[in-house]
Amino acid sequence: MDYKALWEEYEAFKARGLKLDMSRGKPSPEQLDLSLDALTIADYIDDTGVDARNYGNLEGLPEARRFFAELQDVELDECIVCGNSSLELMFHLVTLSARQNAQLPVRKWLCPVPGYDRHFNVTEKLGFEMLNVAMTESGPDMDEVERLAADPAVCGIWCVPTYSNPDGYVYSDATVQRLAALTAANPNFTIIWDDAYKVHHLTETAFTVANMLKACKAAGNPDRAVMLCSTSKITFAGAGVAALAASSANVKRILAYLADMIITFDKLNQLRTVRFLKSQGGLEAHMRKHASIVRPKFDAVAEIFEQEFRECPGIAYWSSPAGGYFISLYTQRGRAKRTVQLCKDAGVTLTAAGAAFPYGIDAQDYHIRVAPTYPSVEELREAAHLLALCVKLSSQP
Amino acid sequence: MDYKALWEEYEAFKARGLKLDMSRGKPSPEQLDLSLDALTIADYIDDTGVDARNYGNLEGLPEARRFFAELQDVELDECIVCGNSSLELMFHLVTLSARQNAQLPVRKWLCPVPGYDRHFNVTEKLGFEMLNVAMTESGPDMDEVERLAADPAVCGIWCVPTYSNPDGYVYSDATVQRLAALTAANPNFTIIWDDAYKVHHLTETAFTVANMLKACKAAGNPDRAVMLCSTSKITFAGAGVAALAASSANVKRILAYLADMIITFDKLNQLRTVRFLKSQGGLEAHMRKHASIVRPKFDAVAEIFEQEFRECPGIAYWSSPAGGYFISLYTQRGRAKRTVQLCKDAGVTLTAAGAAFPYGIDAQDYHIRVAPTYPSVEELREAAHLLALCVKLSSQP
Repeated sequence: MDYKALWEEYEAFKARGLKLDMSRGKPSPEQLDLSLDALTIADYIDDTGVDARNYGNLEGLPEARRFFAELQDVELDECIVCGNSSLELMFHLVTLSARQNAQLPVRKWLCPVPGYDRHFNVTEKLGFEMLNVAMTESGPDMDEVERLAADPAVCGIWCVPTYSNPDGYVYSDATVQRLAALTAANPNFTIIWDDAYKVHHLTETAFTVANMLKACKAAGNPDRAVMLCSTSKITFAGAGVAALAASSANVKRILAYLADMIITFDKLNQLRTVRFLKSQGGLEAHMRKHASIVRPKFDAVAEIFEQEFRECPGIAYWSSPAGGYFISLYTQRGRAKRTVQLCKDAGVTLTAAGAAFPYGIDAQDYHIRVAPTYPSVEELREAAHLLALCVKLSSQP
Repeated sequence: MDYKALWEEYEAFKARGLKLDMSRGKPSPEQLDLSLDALTIADYIDDTGVDARNYGNLEGLPEARRFFAELQDVELDECIVCGNSSLELMFHLVTLSARQNAQLPVRKWLCPVPGYDRHFNVTEKLGFEMLNVAMTESGPDMDEVERLAADPAVCGIWCVPTYSNPDGYVYSDATVQRLAALTAANPNFTIIWDDAYKVHHLTETAFTVANMLKACKAAGNPDRAVMLCSTSKITFAGAGVAALAASSANVKRILAYLADMIITFDKLNQLRTVRFLKSQGGLEAHMRKHASIVRPKFDAVAEIFEQEFRECPGIAYWSSPAGGYFISLYTQRGRAKRTVQLCKDAGVTLTAAGAAFPYGIDAQDYHIRVAPTYPSVEELREAAHLLALCVKLSSQP
């Protein structure tokens, strides 16, 4: 490569004074506009007659529970509808796991990598030692999971089964089956099944993952998995509704814990959300509108990457997700940090290199998470150009 | 007293098949109707330009922060605006206190009694030993607080300073001053200042309590108090907004903890709430509407109690709050449980006797919490009649 020319191109980028933050997976204003009608829904009595304006129904508004039970394909008593944050529920689930396993001198948690930085932060802050498991196109490396779960100190695993964060992989039936049937030395082994992108398809094909709760039941481990979903990236980011599905025994246990800290979740927002989405069909139609906005952004990044890296095969590869919020860009070993820094110096902030790994340590220093949803297509094309340029510059021997 | 006639009256009550739940302090539908206009506020950009529909601003929407900082009379960087539950924030504060004092073999918490059952449940569940402190008309017995705080195991105190739950007492300036200046053996001694009824006046006189945060600053203990308020009983119960005020150092520490579990609180509801209330003056006008609905209910209970107990002085006395959500009814010693049971058998459910004390133990078995807000005036008159009757029956030697 003609590094001199590349550096000149880089200096030209710098001189243009770009300012772009691609560090987080935020929906764009155009996506948020899709749900504006939700804001004028002033209903407050649900279809069972519950007044959503008052205390009560910690387990969620009956009408909302029915919607989310249907979405997650579970029984009504296996579903609770909560506040605006599924992360918060997961924080509580890991807290409960720490309590269940309080007698252990060391508590460990399996972390498919690359993964979601906020997951890893939760397990780190709550005192778990994190063990990396490699992600594959069909889910975490199950041979490795099975090997590690033989240690009774291993209390659970993080999973983002549909369009995984950040690679966009979809767990296979075999992976679901093996996780459900896993011989775990720890009897309280917990699968946190964060189905954040369950309905966030980018293509005509709606990839679906087998029902983990049912798989666990069938495998004789009914209390193993807790499934989560959220409308933060369906309606409004941070102003949506999070729901949880688990065995009825787990639901009781989780509700008992939640009852110590909260009287009720915001049932008006639960009602607003489900009345806006109307039905599973309404949700699907709504998500197609999201896809029509988001898809061109993913395509733009992929197109630029293909153009830019065609001439220098081997210095980078990237994921081509069929859904979700991210593209993973892999550089040669030891080049990711430098690439991210070069981008930053030229005005484009990416997620910190290593963020998708426990403790922020990407041992190979090769992964970069690209979040294409928020910027405009034009901005994205610029940013992807710059990113590709910085990868090339970083690869300079 | 003619117990035979009283028992006949009781049997007649029973035969009428009343069904009334007065166990919790819930606003009535008429109160909730006062805020219906909030539900059609579809604004999403705050007055600083922040889009409330997206992630970001964990500390709260700037416009909402300004409103709640003004309400709590603190600086902007001393106030954060959160989700729908101040109880949840207090749960987190007690969790943080347990962490700060992790080295202590035993952790204790001061509980003015009678008090709020959900407070006591939080400290119990988080492993604190609870120490009763008697409430007086000017706040907790400060001689006792000062004596107990000499124990380094004592980590903090619960306070409901304005119209205390359940007595309706208002903390005096001297109490605020002594709490702020208290010589606590534990350097992390925390005052959780739950100002749930700060603006919930029932009379023309708006009783106010001295600013605890400022008092602590002035006394050289700037990080001692955390003040909370909530709009659950201003707009919608469980669908309002909770805010917290503390020293900027504490705010940073609390935000760092919250950041591990949540990305942002529901800023759309923050905006909806403050745009509906408009200003401090708007809030005051709104609370006068609440008072006009709630006041006749408190009056009805007081009137019935006065009538019913006039003939038998000494068997009961009760609080006459100028604000808040409760009336405390005190029976002779050892009569509260039996009274509550008799009421229940006749169809009126009251808060369990003892609920206002740590571990549910009212050593004198004499306190009953009456929650007059939810039922209609007619229902209340019936319930108060029955309650007075049951007190009399319980007093039968």
